[in-house]
Amino acid sequence: MAKLYGLGVGPGDSELVTLKAVRLMKECDVIAIPGENPEESVAYKIALGACPEIADKEQLLVTTPMTKDKTILENGYKAAAEKIEALLKEGKDVALLTLGDPTIYSTYIYIHRIVKSDGFDTEIISGVPSFCAVSAKLGDSLVDRDQQLHVIPASYQIEESLELSGTKILMKAASKFGVVKEILVEKDSKAAMIENCGMPEERIYHSLDEFPDKASYYTIVTIKE
Amino acid sequence: MAKLYGLGVGPGDSELVTLKAVRLMKECDVIAIPGENPEESVAYKIALGACPEIADKEQLLVTTPMTKDKTILENGYKAAAEKIEALLKEGKDVALLTLGDPTIYSTYIYIHRIVKSDGFDTEIISGVPSFCAVSAKLGDSLVDRDQQLHVIPASYQIEESLELSGTKILMKAASKFGVVKEILVEKDSKAAMIENCGMPEERIYHSLDEFPDKASYYTIVTIKE
Repeated sequence: MAKLYGLGVGPGDSELVTLKAVRLMKECDVIAIPGENPEESVAYKIALGACPEIADKEQLLVTTPMTKDKTILENGYKAAAEKIEALLKEGKDVALLTLGDPTIYSTYIYIHRIVKSDGFDTEIISGVPSFCAVSAKLGDSLVDRDQQLHVIPASYQIEESLELSGTKILMKAASKFGVVKEILVEKDSKAAMIENCGMPEERIYHSLDEFPDKASYYTIVTIKE
Repeated sequence: MAKLYGLGVGPGDSELVTLKAVRLMKECDVIAIPGENPEESVAYKIALGACPEIADKEQLLVTTPMTKDKTILENGYKAAAEKIEALLKEGKDVALLTLGDPTIYSTYIYIHRIVKSDGFDTEIISGVPSFCAVSAKLGDSLVDRDQQLHVIPASYQIEESLELSGTKILMKAASKFGVVKEILVEKDSKAAMIENCGMPEERIYHSLDEFPDKASYYTIVTIKE
């Protein structure tokens, strides 16, 4: 029975792709790519660096709407799932590329749930999450011993979450970056950040006073106690 | 200049090792292995599955004391760092194998800090954290949209942390597993757990009523809202 694989390709560096993801890219009949254009897909660029053979494979572009409207979103996921299911019915294994790890804020998971509940085989292949790569690049741990780690989507309310003890990771911080920076300055937080970690456009900011006023989409902020 | 690499080998499945970790295992002169015996080291078994060549390399066994006594710990890390520094001075690159990701509750980081502050080159190579692999195996996401993710070392106080909104991951739950299970039952938590994820002895428990009374060392509990 054909299967849908949600392939985590890691945070940016093609060498941080796992052996399993590379094997499945080679074995699957179809590579499904998020976006409208493979050349503009970050996940595809990462995957291509790890497994150039995918350039010659059958490709499926998976576009999902960027909105908070639930009906539009649901319809978008359903349409994507239908296209994938049509390929599965032809007996083709499909590998859908996903940035980072597919279990952490991925769009893949909504398509996965539909395909799975429609009775098809699905499997999630773990990838390195971006916040691990950010911490590695900063040269120290995220958490030790009894410290807690809190991953916070910063496009929502964050002030209360910054009071949590342990290490905080702010994801999706770009859209409200001005407000986020203001709050961090007010609290005199021990913050660092990386834009586009592991990619050619990578920029590292070791402390709050180095922070820019605007941040790009792939920005991760770490806040230590 | 020779370098110490902290190599994350991922959670258990040798195929979840990254391309970068495999390359560095091949390139480094010495493979440093946590524990007293390579055959009993989980990190070594994982690495060996991904890169059998390491069996023929120079090996260094790195033992660190299992205690909460800070002086004994510090002395243990210093002794391990000294052995590594001696190899670096000979011009040998050293890859220290670490389960999961080196930035999340690893012992590696204490040795890394000493070697780094002594002026040697160090680099952390990210690995897939165990909680991502657990979520993949359970077949759904850890967090979506505005949900927060809280990683909690369960060998310390956990009751208050279980009140946090979002998804909770309990790590190191084995030593206090009886108490942990009791609290989860009391709260009627939507919990699942995996012992030895990705290893031959893997066991999956999809809900709290399947939970055993004792748990092995490599146990991860997930709690969803």
